[in-house]
Amino acid sequence: MPKPNVREQIVAAGLATLHGKGFNATSVQDITEAAGVPKGSFYNHFDSKDALGAEVVQRYRAAGAARRAVLKDSKLSPLVRLRRYFEALNQIGTESGFTRGCLLGNFGSELANQSPLIRSQVHEAFETWTADLAAVLAEAQRAGEVAKDLPAKSIAAFLVNAWQGSVMRAKVEHDRAPLDLFLKVTLAKVLV
Amino acid sequence: MPKPNVREQIVAAGLATLHGKGFNATSVQDITEAAGVPKGSFYNHFDSKDALGAEVVQRYRAAGAARRAVLKDSKLSPLVRLRRYFEALNQIGTESGFTRGCLLGNFGSELANQSPLIRSQVHEAFETWTADLAAVLAEAQRAGEVAKDLPAKSIAAFLVNAWQGSVMRAKVEHDRAPLDLFLKVTLAKVLV
Repeated sequence: MPKPNVREQIVAAGLATLHGKGFNATSVQDITEAAGVPKGSFYNHFDSKDALGAEVVQRYRAAGAARRAVLKDSKLSPLVRLRRYFEALNQIGTESGFTRGCLLGNFGSELANQSPLIRSQVHEAFETWTADLAAVLAEAQRAGEVAKDLPAKSIAAFLVNAWQGSVMRAKVEHDRAPLDLFLKVTLAKVLV
Repeated sequence: MPKPNVREQIVAAGLATLHGKGFNATSVQDITEAAGVPKGSFYNHFDSKDALGAEVVQRYRAAGAARRAVLKDSKLSPLVRLRRYFEALNQIGTESGFTRGCLLGNFGSELANQSPLIRSQVHEAFETWTADLAAVLAEAQRAGEVAKDLPAKSIAAFLVNAWQGSVMRAKVEHDRAPLDLFLKVTLAKVLV
């Protein structure tokens, strides 16, 4: 009978290894070794590496959604919330030297043509993220903090995409400079 | 003795397969089959799949540099050159339904922690690209077409990164909308 704690160990180790090494460079054995569970136990819990990958995206999405609590903090102006949110986001990679990238961007780039299941999970994650940003951008527009020349949803989608590219670039450079640049240009040009 | 035409067939097939399927999802056998050459011939020409990957990046960079000729067309204003350049860039993915992404972003995301050789090639490609954009952005600033509040090099690097994220997103969506959005927001907010 599948043991629940084994399943949890596989998901946690799967998130760490798939995020660090990428999907196709990581074998099921890499994951079970990192989890400290027998290789054979994997298929008691998951039909495939794709199925684990989809669950890992869910786990990652939940952590991302929790980070967006600051966007709803009505004690701060909408623009201050946006700035604090991206400042905090830009710190996440510090521990790994900015070498891991964002799991959503990594999987989007590597797996969009390979796994319809993971592609749809990544799509959903980007949609939710964009909607949360669009809500606070619309508030910022109503407060006169951001111009109304473009719809809040468009600005939000652009920011998510531009941030993804900046994270990829930080991964190539092993350096935070592209993330700092994202914040600088966004504050000077886009959130105005 | 290695045959030059076999080498060329491997590079061309390597570019197509590695771009379409990704690096780790593509085997040496996939590449030699696509090239129509014996599997054993691969190692007459390349020490490793990494070595072929690095050469494929060189080939891709050369095509990218050729597309930037329009940035030096002095019959057009700097801002018109930039717009035409990105408009043309945004058409490249049409044939594949925007499913392949940019090879530089794909490899940057997938291989930055795996292949120091390919990582350095991708880094160089981004640097050259950024420098070419910075030159025409500086012209646009001198012509009064773009504000001087940020250095041309910073705007150029931001544009390359934001475009990369937009291409990744187009790959996830199998749709050109993220590329159109990049152009729209960039023209309304960044190139002003």
